[in-house]
Amino acid sequence: MGSDSDLPFLEPAIKVLEGFNLQVETRVLSAHRTPLKMVSFAREAEGKGLKVIIAGAGGSAHLPGMVASLTSLPVIGVPIQSKCLKGIDSLYSIVQMPAGIPVATVAINGGLNAGLLAAQILSTIQPELKIKISQYRKELHNQVIHKDK
Amino acid sequence: MGSDSDLPFLEPAIKVLEGFNLQVETRVLSAHRTPLKMVSFAREAEGKGLKVIIAGAGGSAHLPGMVASLTSLPVIGVPIQSKCLKGIDSLYSIVQMPAGIPVATVAINGGLNAGLLAAQILSTIQPELKIKISQYRKELHNQVIHKDK
Amino acid sequence: MGSDSDLPFLEPAIKVLEGFNLQVETRVLSAHRTPLKMVSFAREAEGKGLKVIIAGAGGSAHLPGMVASLTSLPVIGVPIQSKCLKGIDSLYSIVQMPAGIPVATVAINGGLNAGLLAAQILSTIQPELKIKISQYRKELHNQVIHKDK
Amino acid sequence: MGSDSDLPFLEPAIKVLEGFNLQVETRVLSAHRTPLKMVSFAREAEGKGLKVIIAGAGGSAHLPGMVASLTSLPVIGVPIQSKCLKGIDSLYSIVQMPAGIPVATVAINGGLNAGLLAAQILSTIQPELKIKISQYRKELHNQVIHKDK
Amino acid sequence: MGSDSDLPFLEPAIKVLEGFNLQVETRVLSAHRTPLKMVSFAREAEGKGLKVIIAGAGGSAHLPGMVASLTSLPVIGVPIQSKCLKGIDSLYSIVQMPAGIPVATVAINGGLNAGLLAAQILSTIQPELKIKISQYRKELHNQVIHKDK
Amino acid sequence: MGSDSDLPFLEPAIKVLEGFNLQVETRVLSAHRTPLKMVSFAREAEGKGLKVIIAGAGGSAHLPGMVASLTSLPVIGVPIQSKCLKGIDSLYSIVQMPAGIPVATVAINGGLNAGLLAAQILSTIQPELKIKISQYRKELHNQVIHKDK
Amino acid sequence: MGSDSDLPFLEPAIKVLEGFNLQVETRVLSAHRTPLKMVSFAREAEGKGLKVIIAGAGGSAHLPGMVASLTSLPVIGVPIQSKCLKGIDSLYSIVQMPAGIPVATVAINGGLNAGLLAAQILSTIQPELKIKISQYRKELHNQVIHKDK
Amino acid sequence: MGSDSDLPFLEPAIKVLEGFNLQVETRVLSAHRTPLKMVSFAREAEGKGLKVIIAGAGGSAHLPGMVASLTSLPVIGVPIQSKCLKGIDSLYSIVQMPAGIPVATVAINGGLNAGLLAAQILSTIQPELKIKISQYRKELHNQVIHKDK
Repeated sequence: MGSDSDLPFLEPAIKVLEGFNLQVETRVLSAHRTPLKMVSFAREAEGKGLKVIIAGAGGSAHLPGMVASLTSLPVIGVPIQSKCLKGIDSLYSIVQMPAGIPVATVAINGGLNAGLLAAQILSTIQPELKIKISQYRKELHNQVIHKDK
Repeated sequence: MGSDSDLPFLEPAIKVLEGFNLQVETRVLSAHRTPLKMVSFAREAEGKGLKVIIAGAGGSAHLPGMVASLTSLPVIGVPIQSKCLKGIDSLYSIVQMPAGIPVATVAINGGLNAGLLAAQILSTIQPELKIKISQYRKELHNQVIHKDK
Repeated sequence: MGSDSDLPFLEPAIKVLEGFNLQVETRVLSAHRTPLKMVSFAREAEGKGLKVIIAGAGGSAHLPGMVASLTSLPVIGVPIQSKCLKGIDSLYSIVQMPAGIPVATVAINGGLNAGLLAAQILSTIQPELKIKISQYRKELHNQVIHKDK
Repeated sequence: MGSDSDLPFLEPAIKVLEGFNLQVETRVLSAHRTPLKMVSFAREAEGKGLKVIIAGAGGSAHLPGMVASLTSLPVIGVPIQSKCLKGIDSLYSIVQMPAGIPVATVAINGGLNAGLLAAQILSTIQPELKIKISQYRKELHNQVIHKDK
Repeated sequence: MGSDSDLPFLEPAIKVLEGFNLQVETRVLSAHRTPLKMVSFAREAEGKGLKVIIAGAGGSAHLPGMVASLTSLPVIGVPIQSKCLKGIDSLYSIVQMPAGIPVATVAINGGLNAGLLAAQILSTIQPELKIKISQYRKELHNQVIHKDK
Repeated sequence: MGSDSDLPFLEPAIKVLEGFNLQVETRVLSAHRTPLKMVSFAREAEGKGLKVIIAGAGGSAHLPGMVASLTSLPVIGVPIQSKCLKGIDSLYSIVQMPAGIPVATVAINGGLNAGLLAAQILSTIQPELKIKISQYRKELHNQVIHKDK
Repeated sequence: MGSDSDLPFLEPAIKVLEGFNLQVETRVLSAHRTPLKMVSFAREAEGKGLKVIIAGAGGSAHLPGMVASLTSLPVIGVPIQSKCLKGIDSLYSIVQMPAGIPVATVAINGGLNAGLLAAQILSTIQPELKIKISQYRKELHNQVIHKDK
Repeated sequence: MGSDSDLPFLEPAIKVLEGFNLQVETRVLSAHRTPLKMVSFAREAEGKGLKVIIAGAGGSAHLPGMVASLTSLPVIGVPIQSKCLKGIDSLYSIVQMPAGIPVATVAINGGLNAGLLAAQILSTIQPELKIKISQYRKELHNQVIHKDK
């Protein structure tokens, strides 16, 4: 994430992934304040065995796109709400990537969905994850059914 | 895709994936005009061996989110430009998914990036794809270097 | 409605319809979390004797459009305010339906008007409803006159 | 409609309704240039036997809401694209009605859907219309199936 | 004004005009809930001796434009903030009037400026008003000078 | 006006005012490129006998607000469409004036309405203008009636 | 700054510049309420030895652009958040300057960055400033590293 | 610039700077397609004797902010219009930088003003530039005066 103030919005991703028994490495890296650290992290990510990267940022949210430009691992971008523009700036900065370098963007403050999308991507290699994701969805389903009386 | 008028925007995805020797099944399915076909397609996708789904749609673009709700395969959403709102409606409809059901959204008209993102996701199981993606990126890189004289 | 958190925004519809002595069936159905329930509900609605459907949802608000695609009863869509985009996302998702499948959209958080519109539609078959609607409007009128001194 | 320049956007409504053998009265009435004519029209509409009113307008689009305030027939509003704001002004003017006076709003330039919605509303009294609407939807469905090969 | 909830936003207009010893008639009239009262008011305004009309409204803000269509007195429109769209809907509804019927629009919640604009318009017939307006501006000027130390 | 490229959008104001036999002084003055000329013009306007000022500008449209800050004549602002933001920037720049200094804003590209508003303001001192404005409106009315067949 | 209510947003600029031992002259000058003071200030700025001007304003934020039109010193504009439009109006008013007169615009409420940009500009003449700016950045860097554990 | 397609929008900067006899180094560098080249360029810029950097980019426009994060030279960002969002995405991506790393943003497609701002910044060290800028402004002024007849 680009700043520790983004943590509350990304924690749901960490929790859901840990709930699926996946290993999560959490980093605070700023595209603007620690650009060279960010470059090293992104270039070394695949070698270290990372499979998917979730990057959250707000405002001029450059972190997800820059990480994506430096690795060919799938990068999931989470636009974090900003004070005045409410995350529209973050969303446009993250999703409107030029041809060639995609970022898989989720909703504004969509940390939980970033975690679930990461799990869905990982489930293409780890079939046992598919069962956990199905169970997770069944619970969602049942919560709605329950509220429907 | 939701309509054959979306084809020009999604063709770059098909081409780039075929260029990587990946098998692509192209369907025209409308969330609104053929909802039950769409439901069957999404529910059967995983069983048929599909690994990633790319869904493009414009306006009230419900196709990517509805497909995502009916499968746990990763779903990539491509907002297609609309006549008056220029795809802002499509973008918001696709990206602002509720907690639980993610759609990996790319830029408005970002068909090419949808294809590349699909390839990046598939490369987590097919390591030989990584080489092709790296080569693709090297070409992008060289094109820019060339223009930089 | 798509979630029980939408209830406060839709309750005015229920109240005004019950005040007109109309029968209301209230359901919590999520286009994304219970898609097949939603499909069954929409397909069976007309057979069960429903005449008009009011569907409220926020964010990527697919519920009204999906229900509309599965029934030819008139469907009224209520965009519910979302946290960051304040319901602009919900409004665009609901109103920008493609040619062929209309949703009768009311204002953001416009639950009361959804109820009134349903009553106006039903009054085409139930003339006694017209009197109640006229009385309702007269009260609105008188409240304004009263405030005008 | 508020101006004859809106005609191309509303003609699809007229055609689809005439295709269903429904009687259509087409009027050019401006909320701003012929306000008293508009008032008389709206007040007399129900007495003349009209069942549903479709009103299209662009920019400061007051026609649908003003007509709705003067009749308790269901009023369908069609936001027409404007030159600079592309119909966002028209959409907000039409859909954001205050509590008490609903307008059933369709998409920007959504004339066809306005006609279909009117037919769906009328089908609550005219059951034979239901068959025509079903056929119309089957054709839409088949067109998509056909394009899907 | 369209509703008594708009009063806090229009009171500054009343106060500044009364401070200039101008006569103010304050009315609560709703374009949508009391349309015929609004029509009568607007048509009779000039005959009753009114010189300028200030009309404030929020959301689908039709009051200023409708009054303007029914009188040729200058009409000043005040867009009042709305809950979700923060007055953008009100602004577009009021300012985007079609050719032929102008509304002199001020800022969102700009009640005070509506009062001052009315005074400036009236000062074209009442030269003694010019002195009061100049004094008012001098005070504004001095307040800034004072804060500038 | 701020630039001669704005002329086509302001010419309708000139024409309608000349059609009413009013004297019009047309100036090209830029708040940004000729700021001191603009200051002199605004400060001397009242003394020269001007009664109302129409100022059109696009983009960072400062001309109307700056003129308004330097005179207490009524100032009418016309937001001119800009290339990318289509006049939303011009509209916000002109209409969102701070408390104390109003600008009477009309629609984007609303030159004609600016002229009509000026005439309505002047008609408070020139009663014969009222007749001309009424005739103008009657023609508008008749055009609509004619199109309504 | 245009109003003393802007002070909290501009104070970080003052503090960071004073922290760099630079001399800061703080003025409250309103483009609209004290236009002639603003003109004098801008015209005399260079002669008094000022090197860079930071101007913050909200709403119809004309101060930065007007100052820029009256001096050829670099002018940095800070859009201040407004109540309803949250500073989008301020941003567009400040950044969309016409060809010929630039304003160096920073983020909404970006007072701190305005100060830093001023320091970066001044460091082209004062090399010792470069060291201070580097130290400032190193601290930012270290804060992030520290949070990254 | 981020792509050679941005050249037409940045050429006015090059021309105006060369017209002032300043040395310009023009580079095509993509934050996303040649990220490491961009990093090297930005880190080496000051050592090579560059004084100001102008960076233009469209869409997810990360180039100006990333360059700014890697140098403490003043960086001027030019948002280039994008196909669907017309440069609003570019503007938000460039201007909404986090505290600590400013980008001096000019108007969408504001290449000319970027060049002029660079010249104004450089004139703090090169007094002879001030005369050229004054002459440039005088010409602008005279063009307007000429059109004003």
